[in-house]
Amino acid sequence: MNDQETLSTSTRWLPEEELSFVRERVPTVYVEAIPVRTDHLGVVEKVGLLLTARPDGTLTRSIVSGRVLYGETVREALWRHLTKDLGPDAEPLVPATVAPFTVAEYFPTPDRTGFTDERQHAVSLVFIVPVTGECVPSQEALQFSWMSVAEATSPLVATEMSGGQDRLITMAMAHVGCLP
Amino acid sequence: MNDQETLSTSTRWLPEEELSFVRERVPTVYVEAIPVRTDHLGVVEKVGLLLTARPDGTLTRSIVSGRVLYGETVREALWRHLTKDLGPDAEPLVPATVAPFTVAEYFPTPDRTGFTDERQHAVSLVFIVPVTGECVPSQEALQFSWMSVAEATSPLVATEMSGGQDRLITMAMAHVGCLP
Amino acid sequence: MNDQETLSTSTRWLPEEELSFVRERVPTVYVEAIPVRTDHLGVVEKVGLLLTARPDGTLTRSIVSGRVLYGETVREALWRHLTKDLGPDAEPLVPATVAPFTVAEYFPTPDRTGFTDERQHAVSLVFIVPVTGECVPSQEALQFSWMSVAEATSPLVATEMSGGQDRLITMAMAHVGCLP
Amino acid sequence: MNDQETLSTSTRWLPEEELSFVRERVPTVYVEAIPVRTDHLGVVEKVGLLLTARPDGTLTRSIVSGRVLYGETVREALWRHLTKDLGPDAEPLVPATVAPFTVAEYFPTPDRTGFTDERQHAVSLVFIVPVTGECVPSQEALQFSWMSVAEATSPLVATEMSGGQDRLITMAMAHVGCLP
Repeated sequence: MNDQETLSTSTRWLPEEELSFVRERVPTVYVEAIPVRTDHLGVVEKVGLLLTARPDGTLTRSIVSGRVLYGETVREALWRHLTKDLGPDAEPLVPATVAPFTVAEYFPTPDRTGFTDERQHAVSLVFIVPVTGECVPSQEALQFSWMSVAEATSPLVATEMSGGQDRLITMAMAHVGCLP
Repeated sequence: MNDQETLSTSTRWLPEEELSFVRERVPTVYVEAIPVRTDHLGVVEKVGLLLTARPDGTLTRSIVSGRVLYGETVREALWRHLTKDLGPDAEPLVPATVAPFTVAEYFPTPDRTGFTDERQHAVSLVFIVPVTGECVPSQEALQFSWMSVAEATSPLVATEMSGGQDRLITMAMAHVGCLP
Repeated sequence: MNDQETLSTSTRWLPEEELSFVRERVPTVYVEAIPVRTDHLGVVEKVGLLLTARPDGTLTRSIVSGRVLYGETVREALWRHLTKDLGPDAEPLVPATVAPFTVAEYFPTPDRTGFTDERQHAVSLVFIVPVTGECVPSQEALQFSWMSVAEATSPLVATEMSGGQDRLITMAMAHVGCLP
Repeated sequence: MNDQETLSTSTRWLPEEELSFVRERVPTVYVEAIPVRTDHLGVVEKVGLLLTARPDGTLTRSIVSGRVLYGETVREALWRHLTKDLGPDAEPLVPATVAPFTVAEYFPTPDRTGFTDERQHAVSLVFIVPVTGECVPSQEALQFSWMSVAEATSPLVATEMSGGQDRLITMAMAHVGCLP
């Protein structure tokens, strides 16, 4: 197998210093998923949020979020991050279309779009993902909670989120017609 | 309970002659659903089509389709027609958003949009609906078949459909990125 | 020309009593348009609202809204209502796709969807329409105003709207990424 | 001004060797635009395609396509590539929403999605962009042509395109309801 084939067929993790080099030079592709519970008519009843400890020790609530690797499709990245963050029994229903409901553009400074990520310029494809199974926060998350739509879009929960993700929750609820 | 309350809280069937009167005067609201099977990544693998006998005795393949009744929400109409046509164990996943992936406008003559319905002018909200359960054609349908995407979008199957619904299948497969 | 042809090729207005008969029996198809001004990058800068006197003499702000007639396409209805309400020089840019950004379901009572219309059950296809020309309120409207996004989504303006249309403004601004 | 500020506020071009390094390690963010002419009702009448000489000397038809730079928004990248490829008087109408109508995932090999780009793994946000002004192909393109929808989706034109972009044209026409 030659190098070209290796390139094209395998996803690749990057050593930390290479990732830093890359992040300073091009936008990074992200996928984000807002987990929801729906009733049999498709009406969103609950929104799922992770509780995570940030590097500085503070707690933050967040949606499912992560990089698309080289060689990985958007669907594969969505599946990988959903099952990594919500556990193997979450049974997320990845949408039939790869068109995201919105695109969130994160910049190191808040003056561009309001979405911020001090590490990088990230272009994130954001999806609303119905989840039907049992969710167990794995890896870095401390907790995963299902909240009512009213709670998930409340000012209190907004203060517990960062980078502008609270705005994504509101945008998603507007999209599904569930704005309180 | 006064008349106004009756009006507003109950769905209503119409006697045939009233329905005819109405159909000659205003567009009729329809919902249509294209049943699909997806894999765990959301990729559409199969398209479901009903086989029905038309009034003139010929057979036709069709998607799930029906009127929205007075007092009924779009979601309720979708659920009613899906479970009526595919059986009570179909477990359709009604989308979280009520925005259809397209709107099909049926006219008595083909010169307006290419979608035709000799009975009426219908404005149809069309949805792609993943179906996870077992489908048993109920009521008027003779058969329900899962087909590959290639088969469902083939010229042969197109000739078995009517009113322009074959074009809806192609549009749906384009929407989910599964055009052959 | 026979009756069938008449039926299929001409749009039709209804005498008031026939419209009442119909409105009590089936949902009515509506189109609604939220007029916006965008900059060269497509960012929404202004939202346009009509000021209208209601039958009871009170004033209300509203978006462009009206029935789809028998025989009329959704695009034709959008164009007709936009040019009727905003004047012949408004130059609205009717979207290339007929899929609305959302569907608003109006019911006589508020307990179904939050969108209300005491006259009828209406299913409304709602579009965001960039308008590039000069707007002169025609017919029933008293005034047409361009507002900033912050003003159009403010609690004050919300109280000046009716039927839940303020929620449509918020949903539209969420859709275009302009939530304040 | 410190380094962090430089990072966050300016877009950046990359030397060729750095771009190569990056392209082998992460997916590249692209925007693509399918230029269309619409009538006053928004119906697509023409599709615009560039004619370009490829490095090997062969000619290829293509849509507007290019990288999103570090520090650049999706809208800015769309505007930059549209005005670069179609000239300063093209007057493209960048959509009000940043949600693309589809996402095209290009891989070095065709076995992943059917979209190919031998140079890289690119994740492309694809938009349908009405263009109202005069188009003059600038820079690398030899010619810019408006074609009928039938011609743009014909097998002949498909053979003149590369990387799977012919499929994007078909998907776009399906999206706007203009499939022949």
